[in-house]
Amino acid sequence: MFRTELCDLLGIEYPIIQGGMVWVSYNELCAAVSESGGMGLLAGGSMTPDELKKEIRLVKAKTQKPFGLNVPIIHPLSNDLINVGIVEGVSVISTSAGNPRRYTEKIRESGVKVIHVSPSPELAIKAAEAGVDAIVAEGTEAGGHNGFAEITTMALVPQVVNAVNIPVIAAGGIANGNGFVAALSLGAQGVQIGTRFAATHEARGHPAFKNAILNVRNTGTVLTGRAIGPVRCVRNNLAKMILEAEAKGATAQELFKIIGMGRSRNAAQNGEVEEGTIYCGQVAAIICELKSVSEVIAGIMEEAAAILGRLGKICEL
Amino acid sequence: MFRTELCDLLGIEYPIIQGGMVWVSYNELCAAVSESGGMGLLAGGSMTPDELKKEIRLVKAKTQKPFGLNVPIIHPLSNDLINVGIVEGVSVISTSAGNPRRYTEKIRESGVKVIHVSPSPELAIKAAEAGVDAIVAEGTEAGGHNGFAEITTMALVPQVVNAVNIPVIAAGGIANGNGFVAALSLGAQGVQIGTRFAATHEARGHPAFKNAILNVRNTGTVLTGRAIGPVRCVRNNLAKMILEAEAKGATAQELFKIIGMGRSRNAAQNGEVEEGTIYCGQVAAIICELKSVSEVIAGIMEEAAAILGRLGKICEL
Repeated sequence: MFRTELCDLLGIEYPIIQGGMVWVSYNELCAAVSESGGMGLLAGGSMTPDELKKEIRLVKAKTQKPFGLNVPIIHPLSNDLINVGIVEGVSVISTSAGNPRRYTEKIRESGVKVIHVSPSPELAIKAAEAGVDAIVAEGTEAGGHNGFAEITTMALVPQVVNAVNIPVIAAGGIANGNGFVAALSLGAQGVQIGTRFAATHEARGHPAFKNAILNVRNTGTVLTGRAIGPVRCVRNNLAKMILEAEAKGATAQELFKIIGMGRSRNAAQNGEVEEGTIYCGQVAAIICELKSVSEVIAGIMEEAAAILGRLGKICEL
Repeated sequence: MFRTELCDLLGIEYPIIQGGMVWVSYNELCAAVSESGGMGLLAGGSMTPDELKKEIRLVKAKTQKPFGLNVPIIHPLSNDLINVGIVEGVSVISTSAGNPRRYTEKIRESGVKVIHVSPSPELAIKAAEAGVDAIVAEGTEAGGHNGFAEITTMALVPQVVNAVNIPVIAAGGIANGNGFVAALSLGAQGVQIGTRFAATHEARGHPAFKNAILNVRNTGTVLTGRAIGPVRCVRNNLAKMILEAEAKGATAQELFKIIGMGRSRNAAQNGEVEEGTIYCGQVAAIICELKSVSEVIAGIMEEAAAILGRLGKICEL
């Protein structure tokens, strides 16, 4: 059911990739997603190479199914993290935040697939030219670090599908069967889901952090750092301070001083839900309860089949 | 084909509403959309009550099918415009930019349907409580005047569908069959399309204005006026000036001075594509050629059927 080209490319059952979320995506989440038929990703961005090695081995002890690793290219240790991924035998490396040209050949030559996350058709074309196997087209509604493009998933995915000849995975705004079928309708071969998987039992994260995601409604997330490096997060005290400074024309230096260091770790690991940064997508507004990973994936598939059944009937009438 | 509850409510063949676009939606466009099986809307916001009366009569001379009228509630003559619509016998009045409570009872008692445009679930609930017949849930990717909520269509539509018990129409990011099926997948009963209809032969508008829409790619639109009244428009000289002033922390007064008066009229009617404001949605990036209204609507329906056929096969595999 819902087997696409992406399933064949990655050797997975359902075309669902779990976004690699810093301080959240460790072996428990990654293994659970892969074991449930999707593609789990460890978040290399918040691990040392040694930690990453241990996490990869823990995932392998829990599942024999393929799983992967996200590495932000701008990370100072990106080369080391990628080397650990290759040596320890992940199936996929997802690259983001930078041009993947630097690493693509090495990764592919080792037999590992490369997926690159792009916020615009322009950057997707560059990644395709660099030789990646698939593109994640990530809309501005997505949580966490975001491109400067601010293109929404609805507008972005068809553009990227038109622009490249490799499978496109939609990200941003997807948490249930509605978003899944919408993404495929837009031409994607699969979806990458972050926030919904952050609100699972298997995700690492302080209970207060997960609750803050579940409590988001309406305009409960904001995009901060539009000029210096956009981040979508929960509209808490810290986020409001950043927005106020931005509205007053704060310089990059002033903004970095407010933002400080370790804010996303403080939120996710220590539950500092007002003074930390809670990376979170707009779609949190329809995420109301903590679930297990297997419930999330089975739910999406059931809802998707029901939606397609309903649309099939409307179409025939 | 694709007959939904909305078609029955409005007496139309396809669940496609043409957004009422100031300086663009006159009798030619409105009549063509309705004649092609959708719901055309005149843009009351850029007409005097007398002009509106003439336009309604011109539409009636061109089609016997239902059509409507958009009225921004904050417009100083909104009451008069609504009265003209009722007296001259439009089928639908679409209200936007304000709380529809003021007018809903009067409009409905006259036998005319009311559709309200909402950028957030909060405002959609208020409109439903005011008694409107349907809600347009408009995402931040939509062109022209936009709510402050900045919620994208992917994230917004499922929230509004959950929040109200009346049909929901998706707007923002929709220009072809991909967007149409995606919107229905998200739970909408239909779509409202603006920018794609602005780039038709039947739309009013200077050739340079229509070309500017066709030339949009990538990040070619921006949201200006985030703090004073958001407007999505083409990233031209004027838009860049506004964005620069905003980044420096300009006051509302300073911004209004830059924006001035008559900018959208200057763009649409006089072709001032750098110093005017070209209202335009992000989806313009996939709009590449001027078409006739009937081509647009037939194209969407054909693409939608093909997409559903493709998804049906994936689902069965």
